[in-house]
Amino acid sequence: MRIISKCSVIMASAVMLVSWNLKGQNKMSKTSDKTIEAKIDSIIPLLTLEEKVDLCHAQSKFSTKGVDRLGIPEIWMADGPHGVRAEISWDSWDYAGWTNDSITAFPALTCLAATFNPVLAGEYGFNLGEEARYRQKDILLGPGVNIYRTPFNGRNFEYMGEDPFLASTMVVPYVQGVQKNGVAACVKHYALNNQERNRDLINVEVSDRALHEIYLPAFKAAVQDAKVWAIMGAYNKFRGQYTTHHELLTNKILKGDWGYDGVVVSDWSSAHNTLEAANNGLDIEMGTGTDGLGTTTLNHYQHYFLANPFLEKLKSGEVSEAVLDDKVRRVLRLRYRTNLSENRPRGRANNVEHHEVARKVATEGIVLLKNEDNFFPIEDKQGLTIAVIGENATRSMTAGGGSSELKPKFEISPLEGIKARYKNATVLHTMGYETGASEYARVNPPTLDQDSLKIEAIKLAKKADIVLFVGGLNKSHLQDCEGDDRQQYGLPFGQEVLIDEISKVNKNLGFILLTGNAVEMPWLKKVKGLLESWYLGSMAGHAIADVISGDVNPSGKLPFSFPKKLEDNGAHSFGETSYPGVNMTQHYKEDILVGYRWHDTKKIKPLYAFGYGMSYTSFKIDNISVDNKSYVKNNTIKVSCEVANTGTIAGAEVVQVYIGKPNSKVDRALKELKGFTKVYLEKGEQKKVSVSIDVSKLAFYNTAISDWEIESGDYIVYVGNASNNISKELEITIE
Amino acid sequence: MRIISKCSVIMASAVMLVSWNLKGQNKMSKTSDKTIEAKIDSIIPLLTLEEKVDLCHAQSKFSTKGVDRLGIPEIWMADGPHGVRAEISWDSWDYAGWTNDSITAFPALTCLAATFNPVLAGEYGFNLGEEARYRQKDILLGPGVNIYRTPFNGRNFEYMGEDPFLASTMVVPYVQGVQKNGVAACVKHYALNNQERNRDLINVEVSDRALHEIYLPAFKAAVQDAKVWAIMGAYNKFRGQYTTHHELLTNKILKGDWGYDGVVVSDWSSAHNTLEAANNGLDIEMGTGTDGLGTTTLNHYQHYFLANPFLEKLKSGEVSEAVLDDKVRRVLRLRYRTNLSENRPRGRANNVEHHEVARKVATEGIVLLKNEDNFFPIEDKQGLTIAVIGENATRSMTAGGGSSELKPKFEISPLEGIKARYKNATVLHTMGYETGASEYARVNPPTLDQDSLKIEAIKLAKKADIVLFVGGLNKSHLQDCEGDDRQQYGLPFGQEVLIDEISKVNKNLGFILLTGNAVEMPWLKKVKGLLESWYLGSMAGHAIADVISGDVNPSGKLPFSFPKKLEDNGAHSFGETSYPGVNMTQHYKEDILVGYRWHDTKKIKPLYAFGYGMSYTSFKIDNISVDNKSYVKNNTIKVSCEVANTGTIAGAEVVQVYIGKPNSKVDRALKELKGFTKVYLEKGEQKKVSVSIDVSKLAFYNTAISDWEIESGDYIVYVGNASNNISKELEITIE
Repeated sequence: MRIISKCSVIMASAVMLVSWNLKGQNKMSKTSDKTIEAKIDSIIPLLTLEEKVDLCHAQSKFSTKGVDRLGIPEIWMADGPHGVRAEISWDSWDYAGWTNDSITAFPALTCLAATFNPVLAGEYGFNLGEEARYRQKDILLGPGVNIYRTPFNGRNFEYMGEDPFLASTMVVPYVQGVQKNGVAACVKHYALNNQERNRDLINVEVSDRALHEIYLPAFKAAVQDAKVWAIMGAYNKFRGQYTTHHELLTNKILKGDWGYDGVVVSDWSSAHNTLEAANNGLDIEMGTGTDGLGTTTLNHYQHYFLANPFLEKLKSGEVSEAVLDDKVRRVLRLRYRTNLSENRPRGRANNVEHHEVARKVATEGIVLLKNEDNFFPIEDKQGLTIAVIGENATRSMTAGGGSSELKPKFEISPLEGIKARYKNATVLHTMGYETGASEYARVNPPTLDQDSLKIEAIKLAKKADIVLFVGGLNKSHLQDCEGDDRQQYGLPFGQEVLIDEISKVNKNLGFILLTGNAVEMPWLKKVKGLLESWYLGSMAGHAIADVISGDVNPSGKLPFSFPKKLEDNGAHSFGETSYPGVNMTQHYKEDILVGYRWHDTKKIKPLYAFGYGMSYTSFKIDNISVDNKSYVKNNTIKVSCEVANTGTIAGAEVVQVYIGKPNSKVDRALKELKGFTKVYLEKGEQKKVSVSIDVSKLAFYNTAISDWEIESGDYIVYVGNASNNISKELEITIE
Repeated sequence: MRIISKCSVIMASAVMLVSWNLKGQNKMSKTSDKTIEAKIDSIIPLLTLEEKVDLCHAQSKFSTKGVDRLGIPEIWMADGPHGVRAEISWDSWDYAGWTNDSITAFPALTCLAATFNPVLAGEYGFNLGEEARYRQKDILLGPGVNIYRTPFNGRNFEYMGEDPFLASTMVVPYVQGVQKNGVAACVKHYALNNQERNRDLINVEVSDRALHEIYLPAFKAAVQDAKVWAIMGAYNKFRGQYTTHHELLTNKILKGDWGYDGVVVSDWSSAHNTLEAANNGLDIEMGTGTDGLGTTTLNHYQHYFLANPFLEKLKSGEVSEAVLDDKVRRVLRLRYRTNLSENRPRGRANNVEHHEVARKVATEGIVLLKNEDNFFPIEDKQGLTIAVIGENATRSMTAGGGSSELKPKFEISPLEGIKARYKNATVLHTMGYETGASEYARVNPPTLDQDSLKIEAIKLAKKADIVLFVGGLNKSHLQDCEGDDRQQYGLPFGQEVLIDEISKVNKNLGFILLTGNAVEMPWLKKVKGLLESWYLGSMAGHAIADVISGDVNPSGKLPFSFPKKLEDNGAHSFGETSYPGVNMTQHYKEDILVGYRWHDTKKIKPLYAFGYGMSYTSFKIDNISVDNKSYVKNNTIKVSCEVANTGTIAGAEVVQVYIGKPNSKVDRALKELKGFTKVYLEKGEQKKVSVSIDVSKLAFYNTAISDWEIESGDYIVYVGNASNNISKELEITIE
């Protein structure tokens, strides 16, 4: 039994295979910024007004024009955060029908966040970036770092959970990894795109504190720490103005306060106004507008807000050419970072190393939520019969979901993975329920003969020693899917009833839950084992088999809370004005109390708490200390402890450090995550670990001064392995 | 009045514009061949048998697979010799409908050959290669160097005339120019593809002498002197075997005797047999085979001769893996020369320099054939009325023609060019005749109201001081077009009658003849001026206006003979067994006596001879001498002369050196072109020029020994400015 999958062995044998390639990979241009800026200076005067404007909008679904006469290349983009999307047609949303665009599907970002492992985030970004580079893309449209506010958001699976510190910590190495390939990451969706329902029209009202403390930190980290080269605007409005060309968000905060020097790309058709797009910092307008006929003579792209209408306003003087030149400077800078970079690596795809990183992220991200009677791991032995029941055991989770849809070279289903791993046991399978094809399920709610499927499932469950129910949500419309939100907190498609009936005939019931969101669990007592298994991409089935077999000891931690019931979620507790909004406006009434901050502060116990996740071994966190009793504002707090693996197998634990400010002059969450570290321990092993936290991270956003302020006084440091499982509280003082 | 167009001025002002770009252009990889071979050695063992086979055939209409897991890129190709063709769909012949694929159309290769200017061929190649590079192509499918054997060949316009020395001299700098961009030129069609009629089935029977002395030299020069990286097989058979995988042509001559280390690419669907393709040197099979539905699931490419059937024969041992490895080595070498080249330039397109090179080639290639009463140049003056008559005055000559069809960003028609140049004169225009759209003319022979067009033309001709008839052939099926040959030697579409009728009402008649082939000229006496103006691409109209106005003094020379009547052409003089063949076999009965060799030797005067072309000034070639009386076999013969511009304006003359061997032991042409030089002279200027000819170039191919032999004895050196206008004959002796 090992803590990680077989990849360390496989990697070793693969080193020789790619050594000739790797030489090319570490040669990213060291052309100095100064040289690049000088080159840009020399180009701008050569461009006509029309050529400059043409650099600021799409020429096709996923590309922008170059300046052919000067050899300035086009910019090519691709969705998305979990893998490089298949080629789309020039001027329609149809897939182009190419055969060279199959890729590795990496796990969804919720899974990556659940690893609590920034090193893996870096590997994920680098490997995914290699695939984007091989596919000749200049911008990869990901990662997503919108904060998980409600379990209904159809797109949460593309994001990194409910905590700004976790998302910030994970986004930085991801972005750096992608960009090592000379491919821009494009952090999205900036900002406050926290639901899909009415996303094109909804106006978000939220306090400056929640904005700065909850919703912006991951973007800020991407800009300031990862130096991301592209950011995508969002569809929604904020305080009445569309976020894609927003005076406060884009001009003031992003390009002003944060000093962002990259490009702002619209989401597809998220621009709405030429003057705002021009003056409020949108650099590249992409869109879906087309005549729909595939004809190009009409060239709709010339009618974009940043195309001819922009040109007209420049010619009339209504918009200054300096505004245009700033955009041009940014889009040229993007080229020098990507396709004009002098020693850009060449990328690769579908190689064993990528598959193994996908598998590693998947296995480290799976969260063991319940394990009564040591239900997991399940030994593969002669005479054992395992019934695998549920549509998600065989359903593709890379098809559907919206723009993050992928065309993987292969996708190991949970059933395939289990069958491949369990060679001695007998593995039976039946659907149990059926929802139809991705799009089918949307327009035709299941009218299939569900009863006969259920009868077959019960029959199988009776025969088996163990039942593994593989269910949850899927990538269809109104599930975990772009474009709209979920409609119910409970499991759809009659799964709750089905689990109930199965449990009546077989108590040895485990649930492999595939979702990108929290779900209600009225059936929880009826299952002995529960794994949150996310959407895991190409290697899904192998990763699941790794964990249920015990080849990998699970170490994932929840990146968001699972409330017992929907109303226990902060956003939902205030009713429709908070979610999904009334008259196309919503108020984030829970304010800064998102996720575990709400549960903690309001003393509403979640079903499963943020940061929670079990192991097949046991750990003890002990000798917890801070290096000082009091600190001044430019200090770093060093929190130390000893972690011991007190069980019988190797495993990994995540030491989580939260800090709270009692008696604050402003409303505060009870505690906030400020640091964490993942530690791998052999059985019986003990390690001393430490987490360093800059005192500056304790600041709150003071709306009175529109700036961050570190409040002096007493703070409490909470150290534990989950937001609701704190081993020790320590008091410190900030002078 | 200047000898070249305005480009020298325009170029000067453009230097600043592209200086930042040019820096990138001169950085082609200096990675040594040894390093590349070592890299290839390290890769081959990493590849599976399937991956290797996949490198040897198409994955789409114009690309081959890469090995994504190792980062080995795909290979992308584009037609063709005169410009980079628009994007084609993945799996059908439909254009892809992209909007980023408009390019510069350069003049047809007949025009380039007519410049007799190898420096211009180099500029043509380099500039075209830049466009291919900007369009991300790895192989540009050109140039064509099949020898002009018959004026019926629908594809002669893509080739470089009837003389192997001229074609060899022009192809080398063209190929070198393209390849400076890290883009492979692909010399085609190897070999003996000298007609389009029945090209897929015709079997060519030709002597070894004609093969080596006439049909192969340009390919050999491309391989040995230009080091071309790709060669395209042809559709036809030779001695019963398809040329695309030919034991003698490919294995023995190309890859054996010539030491060719590049790739052999099939023409699209020119492969016919797996064993022959495997064993006879085909490296990459491209094709047109598809299910025709645009569906890719069937993946017809796997059924190609060099796909699954090849794999099966490798697995069974019927074909050795060494055969495959040789192909793999070549396709990998191609990548190191192109898309894996370390400092590949980036290319550009549609820039003013490319337009000016296109214009320069066009103006230098236009041949003044007749100029009675100094009809040309025509001064632009108030009160002058010019009637421009003829469909070719406005017809696109970049549309149609087959695979060389282009989508230029613009194409200046002759009428537009004339109107732009003649600001003082009145320019009238009418069609005179009409043939319909390219494809329309094919299936619907003109049934339009030709009479009313003719009446209108006569009316206009009567009104005008000067008539410029712009006619000739066009790019429709059965004209100058791939896929079949012409049907008649005379002008089609009733033009002969129309010219006759126009000449009756206006004797001031000039003919701007647009063709890629010789035509019969029963109307010659009725026109005072005649310009062979080829197909000139984007700048066609400007180039024509340059010449007719006298802004440019014409200096083009015919790269092929214009026989008075079809039977005067060697290939046609032997009837159907020689052309187009009987029962799908043809015998090249004229043997080595192609073009002027036939006319000279058989004493059949052509209407216009190879090498002929007039100027607006006059020249005298004088003091012609050789540097020795006798030479030994490794000597170089230096032929010198003085050329004087005896007229009143600047101009250029081509000094042509032919050599003949009287009393040879084998049949010989009276004389063969062995050297030429183009000299630019101001009015009254005189220059000494010399032409160096290696004695080895006097060899004939001795079939008895299957090798070249330099016969000793007396030779005659002919120096003149046309094959039928020799200023002096000198006798030399080879010891």
